[in-house]
Amino acid sequence: MSEYHAPIEDMQFVLHNVAGLDQILEIDDFQGMDRELIAAILDESSKFSSNVLDPLNKVGDEHGSICENSEVTTPPGWKEAYRQFVDSGWNGLSFDVERGGQGLPWLVATAVQEMWHSSNMSFGLCPLLTQGAIRALELHGSKEQQERYLERLISGEWTGTMNLTESQAGSDLAAIRTRAVAENGYYRIKGQKIFITYGEHDLTENIIHFVLARCADSPAGVKGISMFVVPKFLVNEDGSLGERNDLRCVSLEHKLGIHASPTAVMSYGDNGGAIGYLVGEKNRGLEYMFTMMNLARHAVGVEGLAVAERAYQHAIEYARQRVQGTAIGTRERVAIVEHPDVRRMLMTMKSLIDGMRCLAYFTAGVFDLSIKHPDEIARQNYGELQALLIPLVKGWCAESGNEVAYIGVQIHGGMGFIEESGAAQYLRDVRITPIYEGTTGIQANDLIGRKILRGDREVLERLVENIRQSISQNDQEDETVALISTAVQTALSHFNRATDWVYQTGETQPQVTAAASVGYMNVFALTVAGWLMLDMASIAATDLRTGSGHTEHLQEKLISAKYFATHILPRAQANADAVIQSSAVALELAESQF
Amino acid sequence: MSEYHAPIEDMQFVLHNVAGLDQILEIDDFQGMDRELIAAILDESSKFSSNVLDPLNKVGDEHGSICENSEVTTPPGWKEAYRQFVDSGWNGLSFDVERGGQGLPWLVATAVQEMWHSSNMSFGLCPLLTQGAIRALELHGSKEQQERYLERLISGEWTGTMNLTESQAGSDLAAIRTRAVAENGYYRIKGQKIFITYGEHDLTENIIHFVLARCADSPAGVKGISMFVVPKFLVNEDGSLGERNDLRCVSLEHKLGIHASPTAVMSYGDNGGAIGYLVGEKNRGLEYMFTMMNLARHAVGVEGLAVAERAYQHAIEYARQRVQGTAIGTRERVAIVEHPDVRRMLMTMKSLIDGMRCLAYFTAGVFDLSIKHPDEIARQNYGELQALLIPLVKGWCAESGNEVAYIGVQIHGGMGFIEESGAAQYLRDVRITPIYEGTTGIQANDLIGRKILRGDREVLERLVENIRQSISQNDQEDETVALISTAVQTALSHFNRATDWVYQTGETQPQVTAAASVGYMNVFALTVAGWLMLDMASIAATDLRTGSGHTEHLQEKLISAKYFATHILPRAQANADAVIQSSAVALELAESQF
Repeated sequence: MSEYHAPIEDMQFVLHNVAGLDQILEIDDFQGMDRELIAAILDESSKFSSNVLDPLNKVGDEHGSICENSEVTTPPGWKEAYRQFVDSGWNGLSFDVERGGQGLPWLVATAVQEMWHSSNMSFGLCPLLTQGAIRALELHGSKEQQERYLERLISGEWTGTMNLTESQAGSDLAAIRTRAVAENGYYRIKGQKIFITYGEHDLTENIIHFVLARCADSPAGVKGISMFVVPKFLVNEDGSLGERNDLRCVSLEHKLGIHASPTAVMSYGDNGGAIGYLVGEKNRGLEYMFTMMNLARHAVGVEGLAVAERAYQHAIEYARQRVQGTAIGTRERVAIVEHPDVRRMLMTMKSLIDGMRCLAYFTAGVFDLSIKHPDEIARQNYGELQALLIPLVKGWCAESGNEVAYIGVQIHGGMGFIEESGAAQYLRDVRITPIYEGTTGIQANDLIGRKILRGDREVLERLVENIRQSISQNDQEDETVALISTAVQTALSHFNRATDWVYQTGETQPQVTAAASVGYMNVFALTVAGWLMLDMASIAATDLRTGSGHTEHLQEKLISAKYFATHILPRAQANADAVIQSSAVALELAESQF
Repeated sequence: MSEYHAPIEDMQFVLHNVAGLDQILEIDDFQGMDRELIAAILDESSKFSSNVLDPLNKVGDEHGSICENSEVTTPPGWKEAYRQFVDSGWNGLSFDVERGGQGLPWLVATAVQEMWHSSNMSFGLCPLLTQGAIRALELHGSKEQQERYLERLISGEWTGTMNLTESQAGSDLAAIRTRAVAENGYYRIKGQKIFITYGEHDLTENIIHFVLARCADSPAGVKGISMFVVPKFLVNEDGSLGERNDLRCVSLEHKLGIHASPTAVMSYGDNGGAIGYLVGEKNRGLEYMFTMMNLARHAVGVEGLAVAERAYQHAIEYARQRVQGTAIGTRERVAIVEHPDVRRMLMTMKSLIDGMRCLAYFTAGVFDLSIKHPDEIARQNYGELQALLIPLVKGWCAESGNEVAYIGVQIHGGMGFIEESGAAQYLRDVRITPIYEGTTGIQANDLIGRKILRGDREVLERLVENIRQSISQNDQEDETVALISTAVQTALSHFNRATDWVYQTGETQPQVTAAASVGYMNVFALTVAGWLMLDMASIAATDLRTGSGHTEHLQEKLISAKYFATHILPRAQANADAVIQSSAVALELAESQF
């Protein structure tokens, strides 16, 4: 088995050169933070991921979490690792300093989270969900709720969950049936929720559930859903734990991957009703859920990137060790890393990972600026840009993560199919990322509907203008950069073609536009990732010429971007052609003809 | 869970209109066989697959085959199913009538095998391996060996295995170390083999192993490998079972998928040496293995098709049942099959399946003609064409089968990740197809090396000429056919571009050409599949106009081909661009830079 090594050099290159971390650190809120501090944090996080989380990844896959009599036992070693995680302060990285967090930019937290998910995605899901809960309370909780729960959620002493799905209500939350009945300042919650990540576990003494439910007098549909905070153990005014609430884990799902992450069926109110407290205003629960879902979606895109990175490291180690066949034109037996087709596969993995990292980190930086930028208009602009980019991060990074893990198995040959080798676990684990927090289709629908057709075209135009500027302002002396620049220009022209088509057909043929949405999302994501890779390559080329930086690494970034431009970007045209010429073809058959 | 229904109408359309079954049935060897007989066989096979094999598929996945003390127990119901399989004569479908087979064309056997693998790939692997053994004996065995083993292998009373791989010898068989020492008319075999499909099981009382091994006086490398037949129980002259041979199953692998198919580590000669009999001439084992590997590779491509078909049927049933969300512009809650993006996914599955079936069946027909055509030159031409097409069937259908199974999971949303739904099993099972019997990279290498660069360009030119004829001679009146025809023409031009490039660089830059091989294979396969889909569409359009045939089905074939032309074929350009412009980029990084 390979060991995880955080790709800190790659991360730092993207953080500082692509995602604008230095600009972000200049903001007052981040006073006292500098490159050195960030480097130290990445270094510590790397050690924790390699030494604590990574060794538990396979254990977790093999044991899984187990539910007996409503109690869930996590795999051996999990509890101790979580304790260390909390003690080291990792959980509160990007949260409020006044509540015990560390107040770091989301961008830095993103790099750290990449490490958790690379080394152990099942583990990383626990803080991912807690973050959502923290965010919900920060944005929508009452002062009293914040005081009661926030500090211990930020420290990680307690964990949080999101309870949305019911068996009849998956992508369509309008169908939610869980009921809330008002009673003396709280509510009684009754209903069953499914797919609840870390809905029950033995890592902490309390779990704070956030539950979507419907009040009796609420309207039908999405505008009648409210959000409730429902703790596993009620919390007394002095902060001590009170009564056990009327909720329980019915069972855990038997899943394709992320076996250690308990996916619970939760029952609320078997004995009269679980006590829950309304968050914010009644009937605005879905709106609240969506404000925090943005970050969760980003985090899932990062999971795609993270598992891809891990699969890549695993594959390259195998390719270096595994001797098989001879080098072309010689009789020398070589490690398979020397075979051109294995090289091609590794390059595809590497350049997709670089593209994902550029896109995910850049978007995280935009998120920080949307919250912390001193200028209000700038904040608003960054906020709109972030909303436009999130579905790309979630949609494209999750799908690309699957592509990379698939190649990782392939590089292992027959061993890739044997669980012992570990390559298959990444394939199984990452398969959830294009599904949860909104499927790829849902992301594409959100992109094309809310963000493009019902959004402000100005936002898109500003982004396109930025891409044009990069194309015209990149390192003009370097041949490779010139080649990449041309490829990005071509991709951009296909993207613009596709965008015009979306605006044209969106009003008149909404069905056809919807059928085109994933294709359009792909063209969009490829173009943006290509653009950011161009920026990366341009800086690498300049640094190489001026002799600043680590030569081998700069060359690597340049070639990775070149490979992306020449092997990955041609997909933009294939997708644009399909979108424009023939999205309607997808709808030509009658349902009975399938 | 959905039930498998063999797509007999689709199969027959391709058999008769694309793969030339009627022409094949006119050959003397197939006297007495006609459309009606074939229809009856497909019908019976469909029943057997739906009623016997399909219900065992999930059982097999959950139980797996288990090894204890060198004995392997297959899952509950497996033995009875295999008994029925043998009793119904399915095993000998395409084999010699004089030895108890049914002498049907390989093309018909291919359709039947598609059904086995759709309904239960783990089960289907057992006869797949036996077929290889039969073929090895038919082509290379001595008369005595044929008499001793063939009849009972053809009936399925005994099964056969292929023992190639050793831990240090996977894709590279030159590294084989298993030894054979001559002794009184037989050999003593010693060594360990891995990845032996059905290497041990409880379905039959004897297992006939075909083992590659090296004699002490043989040269090193691939030219020193011989093939031996090594029965589990020795067979006396009267056909009765004799002594237990010195071979055993050490363990079974814990695999990502096909859990019921026992993948054995086999040890030969722990107690002095297993008795084995040389097949054919010494040192020609690898050559023999390759002659039969062609059919095995074809069969693996058919597995890709078959699992794709099953995943599609599973997904369409779920999409029809699962109510979620409203139809665009209405408040009506609908089954997800009504959502445009789900439709797009289903169309992608369907048209890929049609493309795979056209390619796989057409190639099976070419194989029949290469053996049975009355004219010797024709036989030779078909043989060369078959050799050219096999890597496309294996490479492209296996990869496309994975793509389709992946989409099948996606259509299930959250349920796709839960094993209970069954969608994930297809994803896991089909993942082996791009790996065994030569990885996709090995197929592409074989294509570009042996078949293109070291092959006869005439063969390729004749194929291209056939494609050109289809483009110019298809149904000229139909608009859809015209559109498909243009798309195929475009794909062909990209294919020709790529072929010219391969010939140009093949000699001077073998490394770069090797890095391009999978991309080239994709362009090639897409073009050939597109061509066959064009033929299918042209016939469907003509039949529609003349009112012959089943209107709904003909429309479906036409639209499926249109979707292939507009959504799948654009990949040909993306692949050709990558191949031509930048295969060298894959090799630009030093190994240390990965």
